[in-house]
Amino acid sequence: MEIADWRLKIDELDLQIVALLSERAVAAKAIGQLKRSTSMPVYEPNRERVIFERVRAANKGPLPDIELVHIYERIIDVMRALQRDELASGNNTTTGS
Amino acid sequence: MEIADWRLKIDELDLQIVALLSERAVAAKAIGQLKRSTSMPVYEPNRERVIFERVRAANKGPLPDIELVHIYERIIDVMRALQRDELASGNNTTTGS
Repeated sequence: MEIADWRLKIDELDLQIVALLSERAVAAKAIGQLKRSTSMPVYEPNRERVIFERVRAANKGPLPDIELVHIYERIIDVMRALQRDELASGNNTTTGS
Repeated sequence: MEIADWRLKIDELDLQIVALLSERAVAAKAIGQLKRSTSMPVYEPNRERVIFERVRAANKGPLPDIELVHIYERIIDVMRALQRDELASGNNTTTGS
């Protein structure tokens, strides 16, 4: 395969990755709403640790675990920001931090 | 759906996302090998711009475009590092990990 062929392949994969990230964001947003109604914190280090462990366990390469986790750190950051927005949009009361 | 149900959904999505990122890495690595044999540079700003444009165009929400691009910046960084490793391994071939 030539570079152009591999790029077509990457373009197809990116459409699928974007769709899955959107689905993941829908779920994160829904959790944000449930957290709002139960006054749970957005940041839950134990849950995030579980996610990173699952990602490492699912990794079959060729990315090193650390690089995959590096991508996931960004994904989690973005999803956490989405949940914060969700909480902020629900009411004007803030909890200070 | 409860928080636990949404988390199961996220866990399933993460398995799919990890698998697609691995496929994307295989393609990036293959391109790295082709670049090595044709002395092409790893960093190609035009190609990266095309990827970001495609990602934005494919975004149906709920993530804002800027946050999705934020995730993709990390993905591109990691894939570029993989290609650099691929090029570097041309001088002394190793069969690591």
